[in-house]
Amino acid sequence: MTQVKIEKSILQANEDIARELRSKFKDENITVINLISSPGAGKTTILEKTLPELSSKYKVAVIEGDVLTSRDAERIAKLQVPVVQIETKGACHLDAKMIKKALEELDLEGLDLLIIENVGNLVCPATFDLAEDAKVVILSVAEGSDKPAKYPTIFTRAKACLLNKIDLLPYSNFSLEDYYRDVKQINPKLQTFEVSAFTGEGLETFVEWLEGLVANGGQENRN
Amino acid sequence: MTQVKIEKSILQANEDIARELRSKFKDENITVINLISSPGAGKTTILEKTLPELSSKYKVAVIEGDVLTSRDAERIAKLQVPVVQIETKGACHLDAKMIKKALEELDLEGLDLLIIENVGNLVCPATFDLAEDAKVVILSVAEGSDKPAKYPTIFTRAKACLLNKIDLLPYSNFSLEDYYRDVKQINPKLQTFEVSAFTGEGLETFVEWLEGLVANGGQENRN
Repeated sequence: MTQVKIEKSILQANEDIARELRSKFKDENITVINLISSPGAGKTTILEKTLPELSSKYKVAVIEGDVLTSRDAERIAKLQVPVVQIETKGACHLDAKMIKKALEELDLEGLDLLIIENVGNLVCPATFDLAEDAKVVILSVAEGSDKPAKYPTIFTRAKACLLNKIDLLPYSNFSLEDYYRDVKQINPKLQTFEVSAFTGEGLETFVEWLEGLVANGGQENRN
Repeated sequence: MTQVKIEKSILQANEDIARELRSKFKDENITVINLISSPGAGKTTILEKTLPELSSKYKVAVIEGDVLTSRDAERIAKLQVPVVQIETKGACHLDAKMIKKALEELDLEGLDLLIIENVGNLVCPATFDLAEDAKVVILSVAEGSDKPAKYPTIFTRAKACLLNKIDLLPYSNFSLEDYYRDVKQINPKLQTFEVSAFTGEGLETFVEWLEGLVANGGQENRN
């Protein structure tokens, strides 16, 4: 009971900062996405493959969340995209306070798109609002088609889901039928994409969706 | 600062129950392992493939931890192995209190080996003692060779590491060289196994290690 209360107060404190950030992002007309997945589902590789095109059209910045190391931020920095690394030192998710602090190191002037790559974890990041316009969940084929049903919170709260490593389909027992049945049941509005960050397959469709989001001030274009 | 204090007291409460459980397991001569990995690294499949042999030699029981659903427990029950499902209802890891409660539903009389399959999460389960003799971490080739350096806590605390989905090596950019360099640096005593739950490759070596653990009352046999 006490633990539930503590959790509520932590989440409430997070909501307060997230509200402040959301207002800031709106004023500055910045679209924000929050990438969430298990470790190794391909968040950073998807960024490496899509940032060159995105940054040719928009002013983009990235916030990298990791428990430890700045390996991911180094990979992004190579693409000449402004990036801030948050090392959570053990914490299993990013929170709004960390984002607020990271923003101090970014030039927000004229920024169109801010991409937050969360800590690799399919559970905890789902419940912390980072003032994003859209949570984007990434699931890898190698993780198995039962994952949406087993970790429904993030699939409920996300606006888009990338099924990555689609090139591994022939070597796995992933069932596309089960996967689509479950995600449609959990979240009928979820935009789904089949991609391979390895081969590049399907990423252009995701980039188009992102462009629609930026064009609509963070709202999805559903015409 | 307050949050750190709260975390310490939660961990302290967990330690107290874990100590009680450890004493019980010692009295009953039960070896306990705690399987930890990201979602979809292969914990349940590895159990499906090794339990038939293990349960032909020992009295084995399984505790399944999941955020939601009893899918994994149903898979284990098919093997005629006693299994208790813990649904954490959102919590990102098992704790000692949940294990204590689950034990009420198991017949501990003559039990040799208790296998706890934790919630799919490479971060939070690493810090909660479940009174196990050994944490066993499972990493899938599909997750990438940079994961031990990025999530070192579990690799530091585990006694064994299974590199699963070794059959996917030809289709991934996983570097065995980087992987072994990092795990040996993080934890020189870590027992490492290359396995494929899909093809069965390498699992017999892991079963032998487990048998050594049971034979030595939960201690590793390092002669």
